[in-house]
Amino acid sequence: MQNSSRSEVDPFIVMDVMEAARRAEAAGRHIIHMEVGQPGTAAPLPARRAVAAQLDQDAMGYTVALGLPELRRAIAGLYARWYGVDLDPARVVVTSGSSAAFLLAFTTYFDAGARVGVAEPGYPSYRQILKALSLAPVGLPTQPETGHRMTAEALAQADIAGAIIASPNNPTGTMLDRDGLGALIAACRDRDRVFISDEIYHGLHYGDRAVSALEISDDVCVINSFSKYFSMTGWRIGWLVVPEAQVRVVERLAQNMFICAPHVAQIAALGALGDAARPELEANRAVYAANRQLVIDGLRAAGLDAFAPPDGAFYVYVDTGALSSDSRTLAADILEKAGVAVTPGLDFDPVRGHGTLRLSYARATEDIAEGMTRLTNYFAAAGPNPLLTGS
Amino acid sequence: MQNSSRSEVDPFIVMDVMEAARRAEAAGRHIIHMEVGQPGTAAPLPARRAVAAQLDQDAMGYTVALGLPELRRAIAGLYARWYGVDLDPARVVVTSGSSAAFLLAFTTYFDAGARVGVAEPGYPSYRQILKALSLAPVGLPTQPETGHRMTAEALAQADIAGAIIASPNNPTGTMLDRDGLGALIAACRDRDRVFISDEIYHGLHYGDRAVSALEISDDVCVINSFSKYFSMTGWRIGWLVVPEAQVRVVERLAQNMFICAPHVAQIAALGALGDAARPELEANRAVYAANRQLVIDGLRAAGLDAFAPPDGAFYVYVDTGALSSDSRTLAADILEKAGVAVTPGLDFDPVRGHGTLRLSYARATEDIAEGMTRLTNYFAAAGPNPLLTGS
Repeated sequence: MQNSSRSEVDPFIVMDVMEAARRAEAAGRHIIHMEVGQPGTAAPLPARRAVAAQLDQDAMGYTVALGLPELRRAIAGLYARWYGVDLDPARVVVTSGSSAAFLLAFTTYFDAGARVGVAEPGYPSYRQILKALSLAPVGLPTQPETGHRMTAEALAQADIAGAIIASPNNPTGTMLDRDGLGALIAACRDRDRVFISDEIYHGLHYGDRAVSALEISDDVCVINSFSKYFSMTGWRIGWLVVPEAQVRVVERLAQNMFICAPHVAQIAALGALGDAARPELEANRAVYAANRQLVIDGLRAAGLDAFAPPDGAFYVYVDTGALSSDSRTLAADILEKAGVAVTPGLDFDPVRGHGTLRLSYARATEDIAEGMTRLTNYFAAAGPNPLLTGS
Repeated sequence: MQNSSRSEVDPFIVMDVMEAARRAEAAGRHIIHMEVGQPGTAAPLPARRAVAAQLDQDAMGYTVALGLPELRRAIAGLYARWYGVDLDPARVVVTSGSSAAFLLAFTTYFDAGARVGVAEPGYPSYRQILKALSLAPVGLPTQPETGHRMTAEALAQADIAGAIIASPNNPTGTMLDRDGLGALIAACRDRDRVFISDEIYHGLHYGDRAVSALEISDDVCVINSFSKYFSMTGWRIGWLVVPEAQVRVVERLAQNMFICAPHVAQIAALGALGDAARPELEANRAVYAANRQLVIDGLRAAGLDAFAPPDGAFYVYVDTGALSSDSRTLAADILEKAGVAVTPGLDFDPVRGHGTLRLSYARATEDIAEGMTRLTNYFAAAGPNPLLTGS
């Protein structure tokens, strides 16, 4: 049996780093993990308590495709609380993580062959999911001078049927302000293009809060998830907000493609949305804020100051072009000599990512502090061109 | 924002029945549910215990994309136990239910526009998922005289790039024997076509056990799930077995399209596969066996004997063409007058399903007994053409 051509998606380059880190750990080395984009913390206790209480009380069979009505209401309530937006729960579609939301959004809006804009640098899976759906990802390069923020001009000039834009962005952590996001939405609206707003890092901000596309327009598709702020990656639970006119279409697709999101994860998500979970989630955010400062200070101390200070998420995307033109080899060298796992920029930008690294600071502060000490020593010892110096 | 044409999938007709049943219940009526294709039982106790034990012990973040190694080993072990097949765990891909397995299999093997064979009658979502992926479902009618079993001739003659075949089949419950399944696999192999075997109802048999495609060939794609035999529909956990040559391709697709199956559901599945769960699961099967006999006897007593006795699953697909040429109206009338929810055949066969109904017997025996009493009375009172008689 032969593979399709749509199945030939690119591997994650970070997987090589993770496998090398695993081997190093198996050989007894201590590795600091700054490559993985997920919290080290569990789901908040009220979420886990809600699951424990439900385990023997309900068969937890299929839910309706759009999700438990009380969860859809609670998610709509989050829009009131976070943004002051009055969102009809009928427009909320509960999904198996943002992954399922991407699959639903892309099939809802784009036919095979359609060109869809993605930011470069950006989340690598957009590109691969689009390819798997026989769509054509169109890389839209953003510039370091603007903190890699997408501009309305770039969006307007591209030959695309629509675009997916994340703010805060992965890998940069930089955010669009209200004017910036509004300009992108207008650029798409004026050209009858689809605007998909990936808001998965909302809730994780270190200055002003992130702006939701739903504060600006109802004619947008918004994707979010319980993975990041709510610390529930492995539960695979997220959501999609679509215009009222698309709800029935998305419902039918969801019925057939997914049946429903995991019932148990919907129960956990309800627990995570309650007031009782907030202190724990805000404590997680305070950890990331402290970590962020450690990373910023550490990079600057190491002379690596070509990065935009992140507004949100838990990443820094740093230009290492002065040190190496091969981020893959640089990441391998850092792992080997410093014992710190970081992600080569090539995963996020297949063109310019040779000269960048992403550092994740989602883990415990003591780990990040140790990681930055090791990185500072590595860069100090290595000098301006580490890959040419001996180990 | 406009919808794509691929998003225009058909609604489930049974949803109308379910909504009407919900309204009737809200109005105080007692409805017997023989429309829904899921067990009324919870996940087996050892599965729920495993989850309860894990909730406070592990952050349950992302697993690797192919699934927890111990779960993949345990699934491979099931092939030894059920079929005497020595399966390499490396070929097992843990998925978010069979739904995600369909999405992975179809994108792995078929490019946009490819024609894929599906049995008529058959599981309605095959057709809709294929459409959502810009593939062309090709209905392959099966005949009542052969219990709606697919034949090698039908498969050979069709102009298709591959096919997905279920045994036991939904909605008929009929199974292919080893020769029948082997002939289908050979018909595809000889023409370089993809053969996808949907084995989601394996474990639920009432005579001989079902034969797995993996007993016959390694060059097939097998899909299964914890939803039916293991009574875990809402957990969204299943698996895919692919030839060794496809593992890396499926892994990359799964990394991007799903990241991983729900961690908590993987823990539950491990519990469900253990020896401790077996008595409970076999007790469920004994309930279905008793229910099956009640349905068979009841239909025959009502003079509705145009059905193939099911070999497995928990459905009977009965010809009601002598009573009505409109299964949708017939199902609505049965709900209204008898208080029993059943599924119109149109969901499974858009051509001939006007004259058929599917009865599910997955619920408790007392419910099925009551349902059959009501149906027998309905058909006795209604006479040969129930829709023409008064209520």
